[in-house]
Amino acid sequence: MVAVGERIRLSDVALRAGVSVATASKALNGTGRMTPETRQRVQRVADELGFRPNAMARALISRRTFTVGLLTNDTYGRFTLPVMAGVSEALVDEGVSVFLCSIEDDPALGRVHLDAMLDKQVDGIISTGKRIDKRLPVDLSGLPVPVVYAFTQAPDDAVTLVSDDAQGAREACQWLVGLGRTNIVHITGPETFVSARDRAGAFREVLGERGRVLHGEWSETWGHQAIARLWDEKRARPDGIFCGNDQIARGVIDALRERGVQVPSDVSVVGFDNWEILAAATRPPLTSVDMNLKALGREAGRLILALSEGKQLEPGIRKLPCSLVVRQSCGGLTAD
Amino acid sequence: MVAVGERIRLSDVALRAGVSVATASKALNGTGRMTPETRQRVQRVADELGFRPNAMARALISRRTFTVGLLTNDTYGRFTLPVMAGVSEALVDEGVSVFLCSIEDDPALGRVHLDAMLDKQVDGIISTGKRIDKRLPVDLSGLPVPVVYAFTQAPDDAVTLVSDDAQGAREACQWLVGLGRTNIVHITGPETFVSARDRAGAFREVLGERGRVLHGEWSETWGHQAIARLWDEKRARPDGIFCGNDQIARGVIDALRERGVQVPSDVSVVGFDNWEILAAATRPPLTSVDMNLKALGREAGRLILALSEGKQLEPGIRKLPCSLVVRQSCGGLTAD
Repeated sequence: MVAVGERIRLSDVALRAGVSVATASKALNGTGRMTPETRQRVQRVADELGFRPNAMARALISRRTFTVGLLTNDTYGRFTLPVMAGVSEALVDEGVSVFLCSIEDDPALGRVHLDAMLDKQVDGIISTGKRIDKRLPVDLSGLPVPVVYAFTQAPDDAVTLVSDDAQGAREACQWLVGLGRTNIVHITGPETFVSARDRAGAFREVLGERGRVLHGEWSETWGHQAIARLWDEKRARPDGIFCGNDQIARGVIDALRERGVQVPSDVSVVGFDNWEILAAATRPPLTSVDMNLKALGREAGRLILALSEGKQLEPGIRKLPCSLVVRQSCGGLTAD
Repeated sequence: MVAVGERIRLSDVALRAGVSVATASKALNGTGRMTPETRQRVQRVADELGFRPNAMARALISRRTFTVGLLTNDTYGRFTLPVMAGVSEALVDEGVSVFLCSIEDDPALGRVHLDAMLDKQVDGIISTGKRIDKRLPVDLSGLPVPVVYAFTQAPDDAVTLVSDDAQGAREACQWLVGLGRTNIVHITGPETFVSARDRAGAFREVLGERGRVLHGEWSETWGHQAIARLWDEKRARPDGIFCGNDQIARGVIDALRERGVQVPSDVSVVGFDNWEILAAATRPPLTSVDMNLKALGREAGRLILALSEGKQLEPGIRKLPCSLVVRQSCGGLTAD
């Protein structure tokens, strides 16, 4: 039931009639190919619900296909699937379907799949990837449809969304400092990643001269190796460790346990990514920075919708906030 | 360069001309909307390459859109993304683009997104999920395009691909037996999953009366709990453990290490899923059963292509083989 006084949208009609918004649009316009029964059903539902498209909606109905294309080279999907879920969430009430196409790192494949999306007359394209400092191998400038870049590198004049890694890292470091930790180390991934550099920069900003950064791989193994190095040195051992991702943090915590070091009472550990399946299984469960990729996807969905409706948006990079998800690996919240 | 004597396909023309196969098709047919330059470029490239469509290709050119839709409710993507990569791999040489649409577990969403795919006139639809014993919440019977089911439950008269879990489990158990292990236990997920039942059934088939099965959650925590239970009992401890998934195996191996039990010299451990990022980080790295989901996706791609070209296929369930990926958690291969 739709409550009295609520605005009836085309997507309400479509849902009730059991058709896509595009089909509902065509049914009410008298265009497109469909059975007479479908057209009549849509018209009847529209009448029953009291659907009255405003001028804007009328213009849109004739022009739009209610599909958005999502291009990615993240074949593993760890970053792209949360983004996609967010995009879908933002657009589902508008009756828009999101189609994901994986172009890997192949320019020829990128062109073919992009062309296929344009053939299908998507209302807009969202480009997303697995690193904020790498571009997809396909040129999206000068397309006949709007483009939004989310969690990937973009041209300067593009509308781009990325997570604010520095802010997330700052929160993690301030959390450790707030818990009274004084000898804090940052164990992170390769310096060739801008996300590693941004996080390390924020760490140094909070910790100043005291802050020590160790770069290595984005792996559990590196977490073990870094702890071996720190614990074999003849100098004061850290009481707080901020890790560049959750895999490193997992290795760090396992390595500490095997040395008889208690987490969190002896050492507090924070991860980055809040990769649920890993963070929750870590013993103790891992406090970690969440990049809020689903929220980033929702914002990408809202922006592509605005652009496809003809609105103008300021180009440039929009940084969206990360948030700290507190579990047990830092202590401080529970009496110990 | 295309070698002399090779058959020139429409996709070769499309790639060389920098357009999708659908566009190339329309360019050569004199249909569709495109700039005159694009149409001329495609025609020139076709001439240069000596492209000569046969009768079959001519028929297809006019009818097909060279897109396949992939519907899934696996929002996490662990199972769907390898399947999608395989589908793409099988179809890329045919110039077909694969569009993934996530319908979650919502029937209304399923209908809307399915309808959007049909609006786009996809050549076929592949339905995939996260469990072989659950259906997607959308009815795909009686569609105007062919449907293939991959790694999801399907109607009896459908063309369906699933992994052969029982065969994979048998191989794992025979591997443990072949290594001389005599007291083998199976620690696995909830009995409500057909994959847990199939794997446990194969385990009992190989081990007979000796085989003991413990059901719990699909989690590391359950791996720890099961080892605690087995090691606290007053009976002979296992020397071989076959785990229902890699997360359980990870918990099992960590729990054994913490009890001072050596893996693999005291106990051999096998996992299931071959979830690379977890299996490789386990210490020692985990021997695990791989469901070959990418190969399953490739086969799904080949079948949907055959169906969309008008070929007839026998309905029913096709079980595709799993394979054992040997790492260090079982020993036996290395001298010790």
